[in-house]
Amino acid sequence: MAGGRGERFWPMSRQARPKHLLPIVGERPMVAQTIERLGQSVPPSQVFILTNHEHVAAVQAACPEVPSAQIVGEPMGRDTAAVGALAALLVRRKDPQGVLALLPADAAIHDNKGFQAVLEAAFAAAAGSESIVTIGVKPTHPATGYGYLRRGAALGESCGRPWYRVEKFVEKPDQATAERYLAEGVYLWNAGMFVMRADVMEAAFRAHAPAIAAGMDKISTALDGGVPLAQCLAEMYPALPKISLDYAVMEKVANVATFEAAFDWDDVGEWPALARHLPRDAAGNVTRGDVVLHEAKDSIVLGEPGHLVALLGMEDMVVVHTKDATLICPKHRAQDLKKLLLNVAAKPTGQIWL
Amino acid sequence: MAGGRGERFWPMSRQARPKHLLPIVGERPMVAQTIERLGQSVPPSQVFILTNHEHVAAVQAACPEVPSAQIVGEPMGRDTAAVGALAALLVRRKDPQGVLALLPADAAIHDNKGFQAVLEAAFAAAAGSESIVTIGVKPTHPATGYGYLRRGAALGESCGRPWYRVEKFVEKPDQATAERYLAEGVYLWNAGMFVMRADVMEAAFRAHAPAIAAGMDKISTALDGGVPLAQCLAEMYPALPKISLDYAVMEKVANVATFEAAFDWDDVGEWPALARHLPRDAAGNVTRGDVVLHEAKDSIVLGEPGHLVALLGMEDMVVVHTKDATLICPKHRAQDLKKLLLNVAAKPTGQIWL
Repeated sequence: MAGGRGERFWPMSRQARPKHLLPIVGERPMVAQTIERLGQSVPPSQVFILTNHEHVAAVQAACPEVPSAQIVGEPMGRDTAAVGALAALLVRRKDPQGVLALLPADAAIHDNKGFQAVLEAAFAAAAGSESIVTIGVKPTHPATGYGYLRRGAALGESCGRPWYRVEKFVEKPDQATAERYLAEGVYLWNAGMFVMRADVMEAAFRAHAPAIAAGMDKISTALDGGVPLAQCLAEMYPALPKISLDYAVMEKVANVATFEAAFDWDDVGEWPALARHLPRDAAGNVTRGDVVLHEAKDSIVLGEPGHLVALLGMEDMVVVHTKDATLICPKHRAQDLKKLLLNVAAKPTGQIWL
Repeated sequence: MAGGRGERFWPMSRQARPKHLLPIVGERPMVAQTIERLGQSVPPSQVFILTNHEHVAAVQAACPEVPSAQIVGEPMGRDTAAVGALAALLVRRKDPQGVLALLPADAAIHDNKGFQAVLEAAFAAAAGSESIVTIGVKPTHPATGYGYLRRGAALGESCGRPWYRVEKFVEKPDQATAERYLAEGVYLWNAGMFVMRADVMEAAFRAHAPAIAAGMDKISTALDGGVPLAQCLAEMYPALPKISLDYAVMEKVANVATFEAAFDWDDVGEWPALARHLPRDAAGNVTRGDVVLHEAKDSIVLGEPGHLVALLGMEDMVVVHTKDATLICPKHRAQDLKKLLLNVAAKPTGQIWL
């Protein structure tokens, strides 16, 4: 799932260059790291990438190992429910017994081996059951920026790993609630990673999101009639409801199960998250490019070689300089970046910077 | 007096492009505004500009109305005492009865007529006396960034304006002292503008700064012998003491007098001073170039057209973006810009940004 509008990492990310196409963490675009992380668990020949149609060429360039016919452009954003339904459709048409993993293309995970081990256990569990298997992440701190899921009854073991029923999904908590979740030990971060049989997914849509299921049926019929996929999507997508996979399906179905992920995971949702992934100097600063500091601390300062970014007497800042735009904000305001971008959009020539 | 090392308005000012060569306030370089401000009181044919030898060509380009032979390059900075002594020498050699005004090239004054009126009164007073006449500026607020002078006994009138003996020069005061100065009404800002006969100036150097006077004598003798001015300066300047005009002479002589300036004056000593000269938006921000703000206030944000500078949730900031460098600091730290520039200089390739 390589969506995204390029807002949260502006000005490095843009509408034409969203986060998954950037090496926000690591050396390669996040989407390429996501494919690489699958290793032999899911070889590239088995990968579909669903992305905005404007990003298809860039995704192909970033992931040359994925067959280009499997890099699918959505004609417009319809949130993650449509993506999940379309993914299930594409896999089912390839293999009626197929099992798929829905994975965000822009998360940071360093422990690829650990990830593969849990993913394989989830595939095995999903293949042998009618469960929708999510990969929950054991919280390492009381994060308020993630949704959580509460695990319930044990369901046994798969590949030697215990798995559990998911009792409920919960929204992003406040600080006190997040601390309670951490203490209780039965809450996991909802990493948005789901593994299930394609037919199980289709049944879930049919039961809880019939409008999306009907749209997929039309697409399938048109494909049967020889209409190219891009044309099918262009015709059917506008009518699909815009809704997230969690709201449309996951929070409604009874058959969600989870593993507890042992690997590190971070959705790297906004600029301050970067400080968790890059080396810091003695004053807590993360810098890249030509940067000079004097009495600056706990700041993220990203520049480009050749252009000097100089901070004097600042702390807890985010400063990101790119060729044509520079962002300056306190870390605690990074979550309001979209509001700033509305002001950019309102500027007469603002579009050139979005 | 067009000196300066380009530090206080970095990154817009550079070693090769100090403040007086920039339109920090107004549309033309400060040095050109300074010449223009003289009007018919001192026509350009009567103006000498003393500047660093590296800036001679740029000053010529900025002030094409001044005879190029009168744009004099100092081979190195020796502070303002050497400049004052050299100016007196150059004027005296042109006209033994000459009266000169020593004026900084980088102050902001908007009331040119008011300036000329006081300047002409000062010329008349200096021509007819052995006084060194300074143009003190009546304080409008308790500034802690300027030196002050205390006026003493009245000396009568010149061109219908009262003038006074200067009782003493005082250093930059703290806030409480500055407020007392303002309340007492007999303290003026030392604007570093002095008017006197060339022979009076030379006598003052001879009495209080004999090393500088001796250096000037050697320069004068060499000039008499046909040695070009640039060569004279290259030979004699290194031996001159590096000291300010105020310390070397003005604070020691007894014959300093002053007028009270009725015109506006600001030495625009650092970035935050700019806010006094440019229009502010409703939130107190001064912006130039392509700037977008969201919940920013009381900040100075200067960019360049085509490059977007975007601030989110900041106040009392100075942000200056140029083609190859960007400065970010709180207003109250602008005075420490030199410390930041030491760090720039210490960077392997730092010199390219200085």
